[in-house]
Amino acid sequence: MPSLGELATLLELEFRGDAARPLQRLAALDVATPDDLSFVSEKKHLSRLTDTRAGAVILHPEWIDHWSGCALLSDTPYVAFARATRIFDNHPQASRSVHEAAVVSEGARLGKQVTIDAGACVEADVVLGDRVWIGAGAYVGHGTQIGADTVIKPGAVICHAVHIGERCTIHPNSTIGADGFGFASSADGWVKIEQLATVIIGNDVEIGSNSTIDRGALEDTVVEDGAIIDNLVQIGHGVRVGSQTAIASQVGISGSTEIGARCVIAGQAGMAGHLTIADDVHIGGQGRVASSVTEPGHYSSGTPIQPLRAWLRSASRFTQLDQMARRIAQLEKAAGLEQKEDNNA
Amino acid sequence: MPSLGELATLLELEFRGDAARPLQRLAALDVATPDDLSFVSEKKHLSRLTDTRAGAVILHPEWIDHWSGCALLSDTPYVAFARATRIFDNHPQASRSVHEAAVVSEGARLGKQVTIDAGACVEADVVLGDRVWIGAGAYVGHGTQIGADTVIKPGAVICHAVHIGERCTIHPNSTIGADGFGFASSADGWVKIEQLATVIIGNDVEIGSNSTIDRGALEDTVVEDGAIIDNLVQIGHGVRVGSQTAIASQVGISGSTEIGARCVIAGQAGMAGHLTIADDVHIGGQGRVASSVTEPGHYSSGTPIQPLRAWLRSASRFTQLDQMARRIAQLEKAAGLEQKEDNNA
Amino acid sequence: MPSLGELATLLELEFRGDAARPLQRLAALDVATPDDLSFVSEKKHLSRLTDTRAGAVILHPEWIDHWSGCALLSDTPYVAFARATRIFDNHPQASRSVHEAAVVSEGARLGKQVTIDAGACVEADVVLGDRVWIGAGAYVGHGTQIGADTVIKPGAVICHAVHIGERCTIHPNSTIGADGFGFASSADGWVKIEQLATVIIGNDVEIGSNSTIDRGALEDTVVEDGAIIDNLVQIGHGVRVGSQTAIASQVGISGSTEIGARCVIAGQAGMAGHLTIADDVHIGGQGRVASSVTEPGHYSSGTPIQPLRAWLRSASRFTQLDQMARRIAQLEKAAGLEQKEDNNA
Repeated sequence: MPSLGELATLLELEFRGDAARPLQRLAALDVATPDDLSFVSEKKHLSRLTDTRAGAVILHPEWIDHWSGCALLSDTPYVAFARATRIFDNHPQASRSVHEAAVVSEGARLGKQVTIDAGACVEADVVLGDRVWIGAGAYVGHGTQIGADTVIKPGAVICHAVHIGERCTIHPNSTIGADGFGFASSADGWVKIEQLATVIIGNDVEIGSNSTIDRGALEDTVVEDGAIIDNLVQIGHGVRVGSQTAIASQVGISGSTEIGARCVIAGQAGMAGHLTIADDVHIGGQGRVASSVTEPGHYSSGTPIQPLRAWLRSASRFTQLDQMARRIAQLEKAAGLEQKEDNNA
Repeated sequence: MPSLGELATLLELEFRGDAARPLQRLAALDVATPDDLSFVSEKKHLSRLTDTRAGAVILHPEWIDHWSGCALLSDTPYVAFARATRIFDNHPQASRSVHEAAVVSEGARLGKQVTIDAGACVEADVVLGDRVWIGAGAYVGHGTQIGADTVIKPGAVICHAVHIGERCTIHPNSTIGADGFGFASSADGWVKIEQLATVIIGNDVEIGSNSTIDRGALEDTVVEDGAIIDNLVQIGHGVRVGSQTAIASQVGISGSTEIGARCVIAGQAGMAGHLTIADDVHIGGQGRVASSVTEPGHYSSGTPIQPLRAWLRSASRFTQLDQMARRIAQLEKAAGLEQKEDNNA
Repeated sequence: MPSLGELATLLELEFRGDAARPLQRLAALDVATPDDLSFVSEKKHLSRLTDTRAGAVILHPEWIDHWSGCALLSDTPYVAFARATRIFDNHPQASRSVHEAAVVSEGARLGKQVTIDAGACVEADVVLGDRVWIGAGAYVGHGTQIGADTVIKPGAVICHAVHIGERCTIHPNSTIGADGFGFASSADGWVKIEQLATVIIGNDVEIGSNSTIDRGALEDTVVEDGAIIDNLVQIGHGVRVGSQTAIASQVGISGSTEIGARCVIAGQAGMAGHLTIADDVHIGGQGRVASSVTEPGHYSSGTPIQPLRAWLRSASRFTQLDQMARRIAQLEKAAGLEQKEDNNA
């Protein structure tokens, strides 16, 4: 259990109050007890300090007058909170050994202090960097290279010849480097296009549970440094995801689309193939991205939920929209109020 | 092969006809043979009795005049049919033993008649209730507790310190308790927020294949008793799913959203984070839930499919909707037909 | 490394140029080197031949005047390219043996040259055809039958009594034959309907990573010959997918819907249950299919992305659409421009 002073040292922050005060857990302001460290991430939440029982609070130095108790002072209190979660982290630790029930090819090359858990399978010509952790039942295919300090969680499947950088986390049951969905239409049906390229993942990338990142046909699929990808996300073959781009759950990116840096793609959004998305583009939830986006900014699509009967009327009218527009134009003509804008569709 | 009389006893129902009549299978009315038991779940399907060859039929006592053959009588015939499926169930049975190719930590505590199949891995400090069944290749992380009669199917991954109640089924390749998608934005990129809380699943919960339920950052993710969740569903960190709520395939619930009891969320619907959804809310397929829903009832969003050309016109007009509304207002003004409703957007 | 002449022989194509010329890789025109084979799939791409450095090109005989170098001539150049990918394929090969760390029931029946990799589990009464390959950590349940030359990739789970045809590929972490989502609503909550039927998959079917195909309650779920299914797709219980139909990533098909042959369902589209979709229907991305489609053709739904503020206006107006239509009708009445079409909703 760290003390306030120890936390300040570890987080490289100024503090106020009793350096020896022990802090047992991290907790939100409304549930924190006097044994807990809490935080205020935004100015608008300062009023919540009135009722909190927290033993100490991370907050911005400019907000210090709103709080009389123990404090850790940070110009970026939410980032300080994120760093503090590492100190309180309770995840199981790596064994730094190869379990006797793991199956590791003699042709694999392991760095120092590598962990390979029970039931994991590591194929020939695999290269694992120092302190790599392959979780229980995970699979690492022939010739795949994984950088230092990367964790492959239980049940994840990394196919052959994939490159994964350092300090990445690949969550359970995700699949990296399976075949992209490539087929040529012939008179006899679909002819499979073998996917000859691979997947290249940079450093500090996080990939969620049950997500799929397909290998390319002729060009590699690439996820750049610092990108973060949530659960159940589909990244098609030949896609490029820019650095520090965040992709939320159930998003689908079709083949060969290139997404810039620092984009934020909200849940269930979908992108057609062969698009280019600029840097710093934000797409709203369920966004339907059917053409390239060249300007940074926030974009959205879809319609809001309505009570069922009201929605049925809206949806029905949607199919009549072109006719409605033409009727408006006709009325304007009759009233001598013609608009110059384009009415043909 | 049970007889009509045995079925009546097992299902605690009245019956009509030859108690000794053997019934071999459950089948829909249109394909049932004289060896089969069938059912009528709704009054509107009574006309189908005319052509069926079924050997016996489950139906409501009030409908008995529509059928002259063997019958099982139930006030809730669809529920009686559901119960009958258990009698005809053909799923493989648990071995009630630990397979020699399973890896079970010495520190795990196993109840009576526990089954652990080949390749499964059960970590230290796990507690498994009586008759729990861990399927082949499944993973149960450190300190996780699983209640009596719960089944974890092959390939499912249950991370550390998760609580799962009694009589639950977790289907293959699902992931329970992996990290929620929490990151703080810093000048150097995303800083991971370690997910310190866990997932709590009640009793009688069913979770489909390849679904993901993330552990909370500071607050637990909770799925209450009797909730049923389909395949490929995403439940974000800190979400609460109320009791007996049904969530269909590919639904996504973003972090910290609370869903009430007895809700029905249809396929591919998505919910933003930090919302509150009342009890007894029904959301239609692909519903786009971006704000809280305070009243029970049915809600929907989206637009119907149209032939491509017609849709292109509708979709194009959608982007002109505000302008169209203003033009209508202008026409009304010119015609002396002003509306009082709010036209500014 | 094959020569031009060898490629022509293998692909059964005419060629032009030096038969002995070695070709090292397949590559797109813009990145191909003189050691590489490339291709032109469509007439509109012929201009790209001007700048390519490719050593040889697959193209249509009618286009031969556009290219002076080595060539392979095909009436269907994209299909010829697809076939060529097999020659250059670099996927790891099957060992044609059962790994000592695989768990194979004595009651399973294996064909010739079957491969079963480490950690895979094959249950009793399974029948595997010749050259079937069960990947590492995959699971094949009791009584399941898998036809010759089919590959089950690592981590895939095939439940009990499933039938899979010949030459299929089931990609990693997919789940075939888990329970369909069937429950009856009772006063005491949901009563599970045991799923008594199974999944039948034809020949030459490909199923992507982390996809789920549920077993039927009373009727089998069927995927016909030559259908191709991408990643993270949900196929509900009792669904029928017609031959050569292509289903892109994250599509969801609800229970008992029947899809015809040669359909193309784009990413994230969703279909309600109990529908009938004709042959040769194309559904656009995120298509919302809530009723049957009886005519072949292209269909779409949804709205295009817009910059956030513009979208907020469109979305708000969408909820007023019925009122707007009525106001137009009123204006028309006032102006003596009544339309005959139906305005009640």
